[in-house]
Amino acid sequence: MITLSTNQVYPVIWKEDRVLLIDQNKLPTEYTFVEISRSDDMAQAIKTMIVRGAPAIGVAAAYGMYLGAREIETDNRDEFLTRLEQVAQMLRQTRPTAVNLFWAIAQMQKTASQTIGSVDYLKQVMLETAKKINAEDIQTCQAIGDAGLKVLPSKPDKLCLLTHCNAGALATAGYGTALGVVRSAWRAERLARVYADETRPRLQGARLTSWECVQEGIPVTVITDNMAAHCMKQGLIDAVVVGADRIAANGDTANKIGTYSLAIVAKAHNVPFFVAAPLSTIDFELDNGNKIPIEERHPSEIYQIGDTVICPTGVEFYNPAFDVTPAELISAIITEHGAVPPNQLKQFQSN
Amino acid sequence: MITLSTNQVYPVIWKEDRVLLIDQNKLPTEYTFVEISRSDDMAQAIKTMIVRGAPAIGVAAAYGMYLGAREIETDNRDEFLTRLEQVAQMLRQTRPTAVNLFWAIAQMQKTASQTIGSVDYLKQVMLETAKKINAEDIQTCQAIGDAGLKVLPSKPDKLCLLTHCNAGALATAGYGTALGVVRSAWRAERLARVYADETRPRLQGARLTSWECVQEGIPVTVITDNMAAHCMKQGLIDAVVVGADRIAANGDTANKIGTYSLAIVAKAHNVPFFVAAPLSTIDFELDNGNKIPIEERHPSEIYQIGDTVICPTGVEFYNPAFDVTPAELISAIITEHGAVPPNQLKQFQSN
Repeated sequence: MITLSTNQVYPVIWKEDRVLLIDQNKLPTEYTFVEISRSDDMAQAIKTMIVRGAPAIGVAAAYGMYLGAREIETDNRDEFLTRLEQVAQMLRQTRPTAVNLFWAIAQMQKTASQTIGSVDYLKQVMLETAKKINAEDIQTCQAIGDAGLKVLPSKPDKLCLLTHCNAGALATAGYGTALGVVRSAWRAERLARVYADETRPRLQGARLTSWECVQEGIPVTVITDNMAAHCMKQGLIDAVVVGADRIAANGDTANKIGTYSLAIVAKAHNVPFFVAAPLSTIDFELDNGNKIPIEERHPSEIYQIGDTVICPTGVEFYNPAFDVTPAELISAIITEHGAVPPNQLKQFQSN
Repeated sequence: MITLSTNQVYPVIWKEDRVLLIDQNKLPTEYTFVEISRSDDMAQAIKTMIVRGAPAIGVAAAYGMYLGAREIETDNRDEFLTRLEQVAQMLRQTRPTAVNLFWAIAQMQKTASQTIGSVDYLKQVMLETAKKINAEDIQTCQAIGDAGLKVLPSKPDKLCLLTHCNAGALATAGYGTALGVVRSAWRAERLARVYADETRPRLQGARLTSWECVQEGIPVTVITDNMAAHCMKQGLIDAVVVGADRIAANGDTANKIGTYSLAIVAKAHNVPFFVAAPLSTIDFELDNGNKIPIEERHPSEIYQIGDTVICPTGVEFYNPAFDVTPAELISAIITEHGAVPPNQLKQFQSN
């Protein structure tokens, strides 16, 4: 299962009889854990983004379902399942757009309803299921990381990889997707340094990616997003690795705003550009990326940083949270079942 | 000379017997003027960046020389010129790299030493010279703006122009270079909207360019730097106009970090990319941009915004202040003597 070492980052940890969550709102200035023993505290933690990132939220919700089950004092199976649905409802309302949240809650309900035995036994099996969801997410990320090693450039010197936003351990159960590739390269002694785009407006690269790298002793240089092209021109970057929020059947990839810009400048410098994501990110129902809706977020993400307001009144803002990178700018998509060029994604459709 | 209207931005104004400087350190939250009546106060204002931007500093220093001259109580011409040199030395030490500073101080000294007449008459001519330097800088910017109108795309709808950093009135005596083109387009009723890159790390676009636009009622939308490509893909941008810090003889252009990235993504979307700058920015001694040294600035510009520290300790930073955009990405260079493709710059060499 999960082997905890002191310098590895796991945002959701089961310990004895409770969950420990890294308080991501306090990063990077404070590295503290919040202890969660009750399902309503878990709902609150998801809502207030103590835990964030779709896969990480899924794992947290699975444990939240177990905590809720544990709070139900009855020996009657039907009553137990009815009250478990109330727990599920509470957890579902925390982050209405997180797909993994609904998936993990449904898995936990299915486990309970399909297990034969006493209520106490159901609870026991539910804890095992939550731990399994947790462990499988880490395994998926590790498989993505190792698949990445096969497509990273081969050169005598160690590599410098550029990443954008945080597709890291903090956004998953651990290890990360794009940062999974970074970690695998580091462990294989093929990595010299990570360049992390700060990733405006929410600064996930500056705040979270750089912090994860520091935890594991991986050398990391933070740059502003607009410096990437200049770095490539100087030969500082061997490859770019980013995560994905949604991948269309043709390989067009929606990811954090700025990814598209980065892919264009990578192409202009012949720097390979990789997308690392689990197969569950691929939406085979979508022919191409043009149909992916782009969420627009509140302008305060742009005009306010901490307590500092950086713009005068009277200014307008445009704040798309994501952009779509066309498949032709992507060298390969790295999944837990191997890395393929975008036009060969369809081989995974049966999985 | 200068016609002051309430909504136009002039960072350096001669009024009755003193200079008014817009306090640029307080923008965009406060729009206040600092009154300068003494040469040592002017030196301090330049040093503390109350006034910034090479042409604006030049104009401020010219007035600073007059203020210093006014303070010299003697009728002896030689003694006057000797003590004027002391004023010049004080002003030269404020911003050691600003070329326009040295040029303006030298102009003022030349005026004094070459004028025949009493010390009082010399002082009077020096004030006229400072006013002339001031007015000529505005005229140059207006000529750049009007030259820009001839190369902006022609289309039935009004244009949306994207700019980077602040090549505006605040950085010149008024009107601006890149923002001069914006202003001319606005006055010609050919402009719908300005998109302003926030311009990390120092946020001159968010803080200063957007503020200038608001002053004159020009619609302005601030985006983060990494959103430009996404905006272009959606057809929101008709052309890009930026300033320049130094232009090589072949048209390669050094400008604020992020300009190069913007030029690449503009090319990828067939969006015309213009550089607006006075002829004095062209360095005909430099064959190409590879020889332009790139200043690296303090990492705190990246990791701290206002009082907020955005990165953990243990992270490294790379903070180049400028990048070089190769001539082949530039549609035209817009000068006060007209706009030409980069490979035709040499026709200006005799000027």
